[in-house]
Amino acid sequence: MHSPITRYLESVLDDCREIDGGAIATGNAQLERADPDSFAVALATVSGSVYAAGDCDTEFSIQSISKALAYALAIEDNGLERMLEATDVEPSGDSFNEISLESSTGRPSNPLINAGALAVHSMIRGDSAQERADRVKDLHSRCAGRQLNTDMAVYEAEIESDDRNTAIAHLLKSVGVLGAEPADVVDGYARQCSVDVNCVDLATIASVLANGGVDPATEEQLIDGAVNRHVLSVMATCGMYDASGSWIATVGIPAKSGIAGAIIGVLPGQVGVAVLSPKLNEHGNSVRGVAVFERLSRDLELHMMHVAPSGASAIREVTGEDATTVQLQGDLRFAGAESVLATVAKGVESGGRITLDLNHVRTMDDVARRLLEDAVVGLREDGHAVDIDDPHGVSAGTPRS
Amino acid sequence: MHSPITRYLESVLDDCREIDGGAIATGNAQLERADPDSFAVALATVSGSVYAAGDCDTEFSIQSISKALAYALAIEDNGLERMLEATDVEPSGDSFNEISLESSTGRPSNPLINAGALAVHSMIRGDSAQERADRVKDLHSRCAGRQLNTDMAVYEAEIESDDRNTAIAHLLKSVGVLGAEPADVVDGYARQCSVDVNCVDLATIASVLANGGVDPATEEQLIDGAVNRHVLSVMATCGMYDASGSWIATVGIPAKSGIAGAIIGVLPGQVGVAVLSPKLNEHGNSVRGVAVFERLSRDLELHMMHVAPSGASAIREVTGEDATTVQLQGDLRFAGAESVLATVAKGVESGGRITLDLNHVRTMDDVARRLLEDAVVGLREDGHAVDIDDPHGVSAGTPRS
Amino acid sequence: MHSPITRYLESVLDDCREIDGGAIATGNAQLERADPDSFAVALATVSGSVYAAGDCDTEFSIQSISKALAYALAIEDNGLERMLEATDVEPSGDSFNEISLESSTGRPSNPLINAGALAVHSMIRGDSAQERADRVKDLHSRCAGRQLNTDMAVYEAEIESDDRNTAIAHLLKSVGVLGAEPADVVDGYARQCSVDVNCVDLATIASVLANGGVDPATEEQLIDGAVNRHVLSVMATCGMYDASGSWIATVGIPAKSGIAGAIIGVLPGQVGVAVLSPKLNEHGNSVRGVAVFERLSRDLELHMMHVAPSGASAIREVTGEDATTVQLQGDLRFAGAESVLATVAKGVESGGRITLDLNHVRTMDDVARRLLEDAVVGLREDGHAVDIDDPHGVSAGTPRS
Amino acid sequence: MHSPITRYLESVLDDCREIDGGAIATGNAQLERADPDSFAVALATVSGSVYAAGDCDTEFSIQSISKALAYALAIEDNGLERMLEATDVEPSGDSFNEISLESSTGRPSNPLINAGALAVHSMIRGDSAQERADRVKDLHSRCAGRQLNTDMAVYEAEIESDDRNTAIAHLLKSVGVLGAEPADVVDGYARQCSVDVNCVDLATIASVLANGGVDPATEEQLIDGAVNRHVLSVMATCGMYDASGSWIATVGIPAKSGIAGAIIGVLPGQVGVAVLSPKLNEHGNSVRGVAVFERLSRDLELHMMHVAPSGASAIREVTGEDATTVQLQGDLRFAGAESVLATVAKGVESGGRITLDLNHVRTMDDVARRLLEDAVVGLREDGHAVDIDDPHGVSAGTPRS
Repeated sequence: MHSPITRYLESVLDDCREIDGGAIATGNAQLERADPDSFAVALATVSGSVYAAGDCDTEFSIQSISKALAYALAIEDNGLERMLEATDVEPSGDSFNEISLESSTGRPSNPLINAGALAVHSMIRGDSAQERADRVKDLHSRCAGRQLNTDMAVYEAEIESDDRNTAIAHLLKSVGVLGAEPADVVDGYARQCSVDVNCVDLATIASVLANGGVDPATEEQLIDGAVNRHVLSVMATCGMYDASGSWIATVGIPAKSGIAGAIIGVLPGQVGVAVLSPKLNEHGNSVRGVAVFERLSRDLELHMMHVAPSGASAIREVTGEDATTVQLQGDLRFAGAESVLATVAKGVESGGRITLDLNHVRTMDDVARRLLEDAVVGLREDGHAVDIDDPHGVSAGTPRS
Repeated sequence: MHSPITRYLESVLDDCREIDGGAIATGNAQLERADPDSFAVALATVSGSVYAAGDCDTEFSIQSISKALAYALAIEDNGLERMLEATDVEPSGDSFNEISLESSTGRPSNPLINAGALAVHSMIRGDSAQERADRVKDLHSRCAGRQLNTDMAVYEAEIESDDRNTAIAHLLKSVGVLGAEPADVVDGYARQCSVDVNCVDLATIASVLANGGVDPATEEQLIDGAVNRHVLSVMATCGMYDASGSWIATVGIPAKSGIAGAIIGVLPGQVGVAVLSPKLNEHGNSVRGVAVFERLSRDLELHMMHVAPSGASAIREVTGEDATTVQLQGDLRFAGAESVLATVAKGVESGGRITLDLNHVRTMDDVARRLLEDAVVGLREDGHAVDIDDPHGVSAGTPRS
Repeated sequence: MHSPITRYLESVLDDCREIDGGAIATGNAQLERADPDSFAVALATVSGSVYAAGDCDTEFSIQSISKALAYALAIEDNGLERMLEATDVEPSGDSFNEISLESSTGRPSNPLINAGALAVHSMIRGDSAQERADRVKDLHSRCAGRQLNTDMAVYEAEIESDDRNTAIAHLLKSVGVLGAEPADVVDGYARQCSVDVNCVDLATIASVLANGGVDPATEEQLIDGAVNRHVLSVMATCGMYDASGSWIATVGIPAKSGIAGAIIGVLPGQVGVAVLSPKLNEHGNSVRGVAVFERLSRDLELHMMHVAPSGASAIREVTGEDATTVQLQGDLRFAGAESVLATVAKGVESGGRITLDLNHVRTMDDVARRLLEDAVVGLREDGHAVDIDDPHGVSAGTPRS
Repeated sequence: MHSPITRYLESVLDDCREIDGGAIATGNAQLERADPDSFAVALATVSGSVYAAGDCDTEFSIQSISKALAYALAIEDNGLERMLEATDVEPSGDSFNEISLESSTGRPSNPLINAGALAVHSMIRGDSAQERADRVKDLHSRCAGRQLNTDMAVYEAEIESDDRNTAIAHLLKSVGVLGAEPADVVDGYARQCSVDVNCVDLATIASVLANGGVDPATEEQLIDGAVNRHVLSVMATCGMYDASGSWIATVGIPAKSGIAGAIIGVLPGQVGVAVLSPKLNEHGNSVRGVAVFERLSRDLELHMMHVAPSGASAIREVTGEDATTVQLQGDLRFAGAESVLATVAKGVESGGRITLDLNHVRTMDDVARRLLEDAVVGLREDGHAVDIDDPHGVSAGTPRS
């Protein structure tokens, strides 16, 4: 059976191919040689499925998309507090080619603009530009599930036109937020940006971010959960340069674009998405890439602010006369656990034995677990008999498979 | 039983009372009279529970928090496209008291700064300032579940010091983005901001936004779902002025602050939160309010980017020898439905009858429903017998209760 | 004899008529009706001669050119110190339609942009908008040597489109630098700008500024000398909006342009110049007006930094054997008087009687007078006999005629 | 006889020594070692006299003051048009440490801020940083009348902290306005700034600029007259960073300040002034230096906009019955020659022979000469007999000595 999802992705490409406009980025001689018509989309879920359509074998340099994982790595190397001294996390309101340093401190506005990314790269652990770039490449390789390679032609072309980055690096050094020498940082950052990927690689990488930093394929924690959450937050507010606000409003998927024409998007708990189409709009984002994301968001309801239909409840059934059985279901987080508590509190009035049936609960987070424990303790203190029916052990933190 | 959630909220207030600093806003003589020590927090869930601690009877003027629902109302009155011509939705990167008009068009950067809120107010349907303000007040009243009132002393003090808003209104008129006369708009906006609320009101209003625009108490759709989603997106990127980026990174809850010292936060699908503490930081946000939100986000894992534990699946069990039963569970959205599809595709290999058991599915959204239908059609075309066991009718769009 | 100066001015108009481009200002319905081809130049010397060519009978509203004398009047009314609190005197670097308030104080950058001019107008003595505007008109009338009138159609059209000025006035009030109510200030400023003048009027007014504030025709001091000097300084750095720097470099004449297409220029000690041609460039300055000024500056060496040929001296002749006669000549200021001192000091060596011959001195300023007195006192203390031959009394402060 | 001018300068230093505040510039380890109490003033006239008071033997590095002559040299090397493509001549409105590139072109705002000075240095003819810096040093040496030397300790300290200049140089290269490689330009500019001077050197250099580019001592034309005028114009509008407007208003002397605490001022046709006092204000200008200039401007009426007393005339006497003798005097420029023309035109009415007596004319510029020739031609065409009595040949362009 040909997957309906693949068929759907192909139809989206067909529709969006009609959109024209924008231009391939200038400045890097290698990037200028890209085929303007190459067009691809890939989608990787948190359960490990990958769907692709279009030119998914086409390789291109990762460019600014590398800023997200490089930032994650720098936080793991230095701690978040130290990194927030090096770069703020505010949208700059400036266009993609502005320098955007804070007037008071000289600190870059955020880690997803060039100034911030240079500061970030400089703080990655490593004795040389090569070593720092290799560590970033390795993290991308692990997330993508295959060894990625540096495109030396792109790197060399990058170095040919690195005056703006060199300027920024010296400015950063002059205000004390550069962890290495400017020339070295510019070199390492050029290497970091010159790693070749295809759309499936990027979607797979995005699916790790969507999955709380855990590789869906191997269940290995590749990025610390808190770091992963922080990086996604910054992608949500700063990932699409000065179009970030309207991107979140219309697409609603934390994202990062690159000058080669790719965009990755991460919908937490659901999917990673990647699109490639080299022609860019005035914000520096891929024209067709933006269109594809708008379609996916609308058609698949992949919007961060999309809410489950109202009226649904974590409480499945409440039965019994003198005994009360509360059947819980789904993913229990704060709001779900709270509704259990509220129900149980009412059940107390009628007296009798209370059974919490966790057979149909898929997952519980720590908060839900603590709230349930509180409820049980409270009920028992009030003299009630409380049973917990949890054959799969979800209340002990074992996720159901 | 005294709720553990209420006890928790009280302990958070106790802890945060030790934080000091900031100052009550100046400029409005009435606001300056606020008790700097008043401190309250309330939390309202999408299932309709409300928890409160501290001075929850203290009333204060809603101020800038009214910008969110006023924007929702203006979109419903004019359509989103028309509203995007009046104001952009980008974070300005400027501090809370900047004018922040786009240099090219004169359009305000976003609807949650004063310039944008004045443009928004001017476009709300109504023949007079009073009528526009009353319509905004009515929407707030319906969301809060009680009739709110205008504090005429605050309104009059507002009018005493309205030069900056008057200036902005004239600038907006000069670039053609004002729907009424400047003096009239400033008057109406002052009325809109002078509605008295308490913390429980605000949390209840926030719970409507958290619930896709549906009142948890009455299940009435008070705000259109798409409009509600758009407003939450803009709150996510622009709600906390020039601290919006770091707010989303650390707190992760779309929010809006007001000059009287209140903040509302909305975690889609879970809760609405409101805090009051009048002393403001340099960004114009309540000092203790920010601290309370940081605590709630951390303790209750109320972060937009928080992801359910990995490894969990929408597939409960796959059993059988010649016949295959796929038990689905939880809330089915794109990613969940996709995993069913992937499993079913594998099941096809082994041949035989396939049963989709929806007994334990809590909710499905349209995308999940369409994907399942596609899967069923495909399987039947391939010659398989497919049964759907859906006693609660979730596949027909009836949410489980 | 037809004056060669008039013939020259006519030839300049003929040459510059070939320059095209620019556009009549929009926004004021009356101004939009101006004849785009009207073209005039007038030149008035500090000795009272007036030369004119082109459409010198064409009347037009004075507009922003009124900012210079209004500022002079406000300084005379309030003192310079008080006025510097209301508006700074720095070029803003912004284009002509920017608001340009200082970020720290809200004070306008300078009195020759709209924000500054509104602050200035508000501080002119007078009980009403009408009275303030009348006082400015009266000063212009006295300088022009005829009673000027307000063009009520222009005033009314101005009031039709006053949103931007109203906005600025409210901003100024909100930071405390407005001396009257915003609506009143905007009204008075509109009246101030709507006074009709022709090119000869403007050149005559400029000749008063060129003459240290003294009317060349009547020798009456119409503007205080120190105030006059201050206003010219501000015209030098801020008069041509964000083209002020290149204007001083190429033309070198302190100037002020108006939106009706006129420019006045003032070369201290020499001439006042006025040009009219309604089509404006992107800086808001008359296209042909700028061209005419460039020609006049080059052809007539009317550049502030133009220096008299080197080697010339204030010392005419030094004669005698035991007696020394020092013949002085020209206009003695610091540098000239210093050269006399230096010569006299050398003369002292040869001993004998010293005669200072002031027969050919045209003028002396106070500094030159004091330096000569010092020299005489010193010489006499050293035992020399010193005579002063000053039949015209220039050393007593009586200028030679 | 001790000169009263020297005594006066000493008294000014004494008075201004009471002013305190400001701080020595940080960043260059050598500059930080300057004696904060060193204080000197020197004054050099266009007739070659030099007066000095205070620590006039103290040497310090020329720093930003070198920007003026470096700009003059670059114009002579490349032509003005080419230089205006490299840097604009507008005041930036930004503070002294801003980068201030034009947003549209990337061109520096003016040649007297660092960005402009780096662009200027890069375009000076020379095969190396050393050669470019040497050519600038040579021009300064010729103007100062002695061979100046580079302070290698200052240069090396400069190179230690050159990140900001390196950044700017790379930015300039990225927009195509750098005439050499960034590192090379930064090196050359550091050398250019590290030339040691004392206050007398600077005043002497300033006197060349005051004298139209001609050395008062040797009468050699060291800087082309038109270039000299252009450089003075830019010093008038941009020389004192973001305090340039108020400087011209209060002091009225085109000037340039340096980070070592010196300021030079140039009053065209009169004097060059230099002051040294190392502690700087928030604009980067010497605190006591500014105070001394304010005193000199006020006491000696050394203000660009200072005008000769009104009523004075270039016409000395008009005598005769049938014959008319017009005695001219002083320095004839446009306005003076015009008044002769006007008088002669009136003389024509009474008929008879006309004699122009040029015995008491000190200088005439080309414009005055042409106007007089026009007048003579016109009178002769009308049938008048005209004689010119010019024993000193001033009408032939020979200046009187």
